[in-house]
Amino acid sequence: MAGKVISLAVIRRLPRYYRYLGELLENGVVRISSKELSERMQVTASQIRQDLNNFGGFGQQGYGYNVEYLYTEIGKILGLDRQYNMIIIGAGNFGQALANYTAFERRGFILTGIFDVNPRLEGISIRGIPVRMMDELKDFVKETPVHIAALTIPKAKAPQVAQDLVKLGIKAIWNFASTDLHLPEGVVSQNVHLTESLMQLSYNLKNLEEEEGKQ
Amino acid sequence: MAGKVISLAVIRRLPRYYRYLGELLENGVVRISSKELSERMQVTASQIRQDLNNFGGFGQQGYGYNVEYLYTEIGKILGLDRQYNMIIIGAGNFGQALANYTAFERRGFILTGIFDVNPRLEGISIRGIPVRMMDELKDFVKETPVHIAALTIPKAKAPQVAQDLVKLGIKAIWNFASTDLHLPEGVVSQNVHLTESLMQLSYNLKNLEEEEGKQ
Repeated sequence: MAGKVISLAVIRRLPRYYRYLGELLENGVVRISSKELSERMQVTASQIRQDLNNFGGFGQQGYGYNVEYLYTEIGKILGLDRQYNMIIIGAGNFGQALANYTAFERRGFILTGIFDVNPRLEGISIRGIPVRMMDELKDFVKETPVHIAALTIPKAKAPQVAQDLVKLGIKAIWNFASTDLHLPEGVVSQNVHLTESLMQLSYNLKNLEEEEGKQ
Repeated sequence: MAGKVISLAVIRRLPRYYRYLGELLENGVVRISSKELSERMQVTASQIRQDLNNFGGFGQQGYGYNVEYLYTEIGKILGLDRQYNMIIIGAGNFGQALANYTAFERRGFILTGIFDVNPRLEGISIRGIPVRMMDELKDFVKETPVHIAALTIPKAKAPQVAQDLVKLGIKAIWNFASTDLHLPEGVVSQNVHLTESLMQLSYNLKNLEEEEGKQ
């Protein structure tokens, strides 16, 4: 597998496989055929086989997939067989909501710090984690390794803050600001652009209504 | 254009064009070549031309794109030349954060109601909008048309609530619950699966570290 380039489309689908397999596991399902999995996930069985073949297959002809094994293996591929220390930069409404979301911890993403520039937020705690001021970040990072920083700050400030995070050695940025970050090599990022998601929905709603108008 | 099927990949990219063009417009840029736009957006000029050709082009050889015209036209394609009434179902941390996010309103998505089943939230207001109880939704929808419902509720409840929304005639669901909704024809949805986004980030971080480990 070393050096094999996996397409972005496959990487996007992997977490969904992981979610379905996790649910099957919770429901006590031991094995599943690609046909059954395909019906549940509403993708073709051939798509599933192709996607998983990128990583060596995992299925046995006539047996199907061992749910627990496949779940564990996809977890490893996604890097979920370890823990990540995550901090949140921006303790506004959205940052606080994210901090309260415990589902991430169950997947190994441990919230270790919350930072903001607003002195009025200093001293507030979320799930026992105090909001610290941004000027404390440098020392914080020295004491506790930070693997992932979630950026929940206004877009105008995001590029500079991202640069600062990179200088502190943080290599993964989960960006909720409505702007693209231009990061150096050796740093990865993932965007959650909510307004753009909403625009895709309005696009689809508009087209639905136009189709219905024709009938 | 009627009946032409636009690929999902193009639809995903349109809001990003819209965002860049909006920023150019704010900065007083009147026209832009596909080359300049491509450098800013870090996609190829040929990709931009191809994407926009799906909708008839908009560019003139040697002149480039008129920023305001292109912004307006892409806005129309995305259905942003009208207003949408949006409600939020689930007034927990995340629903409240979403309700506080005013950027949606600027794009024409007007928050008209917030609903929850938790009686302790009854009477709380967010930006002047009271949290109503779910059993008030039926009458609410009769009085005020609802175009979009954002679902910020636990995944176990999401499928049933989505069915209820569809019965009330709501045709667009913005789903934040960590599950896929199986909706009937004539209803559109858009998922925001935060945990899956975080898993894509851990996948990329893992691969980055593996690459660095090899050097």
